[in-house]
Amino acid sequence: MSYLEPGSGRPRGTLHQSVYDEVILGIQSGEWKRYEKLPSVRAMAERMQVNRLTVHKAYQRLAEEGIVQARYKSGYYVSSEPAPRPGSRFLDDPPWEYQAKPVRAPRSRLFEIHRKKVAYKMSEALIDPALLPNAFLSGHVKEVFDLHPKVLSTYSSVSGDEELREEMSRYFTEKYGLSLSADELLVTTGSQQAIDLISRSLVQAGDRVLIERPTYSPAIDVFLRQNVRLLPVEITPEGYDLDRIEYLMRTEKPQLFYMNPTFQNPTGYTVPASQRKQLLELAERYKCILVEDDVYRDIYFEDPPPPPLFYYDTEGYAIYICSFSKFVAPGLRISLLAARPALMDSIIAVKALADNGTPLLTQKIFQHYFFSARLQEHVAKLRIALELRKARMERILAGTGFRWASPGGGLNLWINLPEEVPVDLLLERCLEQSVAFVPGEICDPLGEMKSWIRLSYSYISEAEMEEGLRRLIAIAEEMKGGITFPRTDLN
Amino acid sequence: MSYLEPGSGRPRGTLHQSVYDEVILGIQSGEWKRYEKLPSVRAMAERMQVNRLTVHKAYQRLAEEGIVQARYKSGYYVSSEPAPRPGSRFLDDPPWEYQAKPVRAPRSRLFEIHRKKVAYKMSEALIDPALLPNAFLSGHVKEVFDLHPKVLSTYSSVSGDEELREEMSRYFTEKYGLSLSADELLVTTGSQQAIDLISRSLVQAGDRVLIERPTYSPAIDVFLRQNVRLLPVEITPEGYDLDRIEYLMRTEKPQLFYMNPTFQNPTGYTVPASQRKQLLELAERYKCILVEDDVYRDIYFEDPPPPPLFYYDTEGYAIYICSFSKFVAPGLRISLLAARPALMDSIIAVKALADNGTPLLTQKIFQHYFFSARLQEHVAKLRIALELRKARMERILAGTGFRWASPGGGLNLWINLPEEVPVDLLLERCLEQSVAFVPGEICDPLGEMKSWIRLSYSYISEAEMEEGLRRLIAIAEEMKGGITFPRTDLN
Repeated sequence: MSYLEPGSGRPRGTLHQSVYDEVILGIQSGEWKRYEKLPSVRAMAERMQVNRLTVHKAYQRLAEEGIVQARYKSGYYVSSEPAPRPGSRFLDDPPWEYQAKPVRAPRSRLFEIHRKKVAYKMSEALIDPALLPNAFLSGHVKEVFDLHPKVLSTYSSVSGDEELREEMSRYFTEKYGLSLSADELLVTTGSQQAIDLISRSLVQAGDRVLIERPTYSPAIDVFLRQNVRLLPVEITPEGYDLDRIEYLMRTEKPQLFYMNPTFQNPTGYTVPASQRKQLLELAERYKCILVEDDVYRDIYFEDPPPPPLFYYDTEGYAIYICSFSKFVAPGLRISLLAARPALMDSIIAVKALADNGTPLLTQKIFQHYFFSARLQEHVAKLRIALELRKARMERILAGTGFRWASPGGGLNLWINLPEEVPVDLLLERCLEQSVAFVPGEICDPLGEMKSWIRLSYSYISEAEMEEGLRRLIAIAEEMKGGITFPRTDLN
Repeated sequence: MSYLEPGSGRPRGTLHQSVYDEVILGIQSGEWKRYEKLPSVRAMAERMQVNRLTVHKAYQRLAEEGIVQARYKSGYYVSSEPAPRPGSRFLDDPPWEYQAKPVRAPRSRLFEIHRKKVAYKMSEALIDPALLPNAFLSGHVKEVFDLHPKVLSTYSSVSGDEELREEMSRYFTEKYGLSLSADELLVTTGSQQAIDLISRSLVQAGDRVLIERPTYSPAIDVFLRQNVRLLPVEITPEGYDLDRIEYLMRTEKPQLFYMNPTFQNPTGYTVPASQRKQLLELAERYKCILVEDDVYRDIYFEDPPPPPLFYYDTEGYAIYICSFSKFVAPGLRISLLAARPALMDSIIAVKALADNGTPLLTQKIFQHYFFSARLQEHVAKLRIALELRKARMERILAGTGFRWASPGGGLNLWINLPEEVPVDLLLERCLEQSVAFVPGEICDPLGEMKSWIRLSYSYISEAEMEEGLRRLIAIAEEMKGGITFPRTDLN
């Protein structure tokens, strides 16, 4: 067979080779698509009439070669981009159909749900445009052009506008006591790009990456594309299990830990200050980079959150991502990434290839708005508006049998549904009735958490929220039978 | 040795194994860095006291495993990100230093030169901001906010603003007769991002990619990051050697051909219409995707260029990239990518991960300006201004012994220097005197073309051009001795 060439030097015709070949052919024939789970060791052993150890060995080798991925507690999955194998069809003499077909890219399921047009969008962790100071912004932009007449004729540097990075480094230093120079800041097009640049510059195929469970689902897709092995770390209202994290860092030597420790998406949980300091100590001891995605910090309801992990960093193992534009002006898509020079050099080199720099105009508009007195008023008002919407959602959901930990900030409720409500069916029925939410399993690196959902209170008006929840609750009620819709809570 | 584990099943201790191991250790120890060339087969044979065939076999295997790259007519280079090998140190039990170190990313040498602050920048293939209608644009932007009050509060869809894509698809249809729907267009942040998205979604490690020689150097970096094998195709004032292209398509089965066939960067050459049609036939016969980077089309001096290759596409093997913002408003960074659905789906999926959509504001500003009558006047004026600068540069260079084919459009002269002028030394001396240009070898996928340079006439004023060229010529003159500086040409 053409994918077993002399020179690849593998034992031929052994049982474990035959299982190995079966999987390769299955992938090439499309029986198992990228990201699909392979049959369990047991099932494959039956199918091939060999013992399980043989299947295990074959799967191990496929994993070592990057063709499949072992996912913690879950099984073996076809890789996003199977690595070239000596003499395999992936490289040599491919059938036309294969060669001509583009590499499949992962399509975020979240992205799929967002594409659906619905009236009651509780799937969007975004700010309702009605809550943003549109009129003010328009006038404000005019000033930017008076200040920078050539802003539209000029490219930004790859790392971002110098003036903006200078001002932001001062801001971080004064507000959070971070010692940051402008050179340690990179302007990115949204925090999504920051995560993507980090994954492309700092990890490679086969690396281990710690990730929260549940987490921001596009981050799962970004890291899986790099063919890393994801190691989930549970996040609870109390934070992480640090013993487990130390165990994983010691035994698996992860390259980095992607985390969102403040008003986390989707849970809204916040990791306490005490753990933040310890996490840095662990990171330094085990040489694991902590990537702190901190885009919800300013959306707190009572108390401001503890300082960023970056604050405790001394050895350069922390990377900090913050995106204000989410609640300042989403149309600008301005985020900042802070990292020490050793890491920043690699990240900037990839940014140069990715888009050669974020548009200058959006940076300048952001800069002048962000440092205007008006912004602080706006954010203060926004907090109140969002807290009211959160409270409203919680009142409506009270007595439904849904369970959640009330978040101290952020844009979402992370809700545990009663056993009897199957989330997949609930989502299907809701979409039929123009109601959208995010099913928990999308946020789970293991693809489980099937009794959880994420409801965002940030994007829809209170009236839409009422009607959307009314429909959702009615459907859930019907499924489990029994609970009465708490009408009174609405008035 | 830990990188030779049982299970990887390779013959041990053979001569070819020993060469193989030598290279792996050399890479791990840093003796050969990423992108560095390995010793020639001959040199390695002497070093290891083995015959050349043995070295050849070892290099072959390293190439098959993606650890090194064979470059056409050049030799073997360490890959950007060596692929994981069964049991190799790249995956298992790495020494801390290795694990902790970020993956090296390629740093474009062009990017390095651009970072240097010089007074006479003939290295920038950009438009002089003084040639852009800044005042008009500022006023114009105000209208955008009146038309779209919530433009700053809203996210664009991943593929880009619907209205903009609708209008652009009509524009392409009317102007070039391309049959394009809005769904076949993707808005990207500059053409750099378009190229990066294509490389991430349509090729994988080990694929062959055809690329012009010389070419746009960041494209070389983008494709090398994907660990593809680059196959150079010479471009001349007459176009390509189609027989050679057919030979490469037939024997190497390239996944795609990245090309810039109109007023090419760096050469300014244009591929004739007759060849464009034939290229499509070849692409369809050999199932090779043609990626047409067409960002200079509107900068023509006498005759408009032949139609885009995309015009001849019937089977969906062409991808079209155009970026107007280069000469409309660089600060916007708006480009468009056209592809048929089969390819577009994969590209959009990566765009979602890369930045989840280009900022809406820049798209709306671009849309309203691009379709204003004012733009057409501007472009007409711009053509004249650039043609004058080109003529000026050519007059100053006349009689220096420099040789070039006068381009019919674009932003650069591609110049062949006299034998006696070593370009590396020339660049070094020029930078000392605050003059920058691009050395040809950067634009060569093979890293040769050492007697060529790219001079851009688009970015500097005529006065700067005069002084910059005066210095450059004086240095070159000194090096070769003899030619007298053609003073009279300046007046």
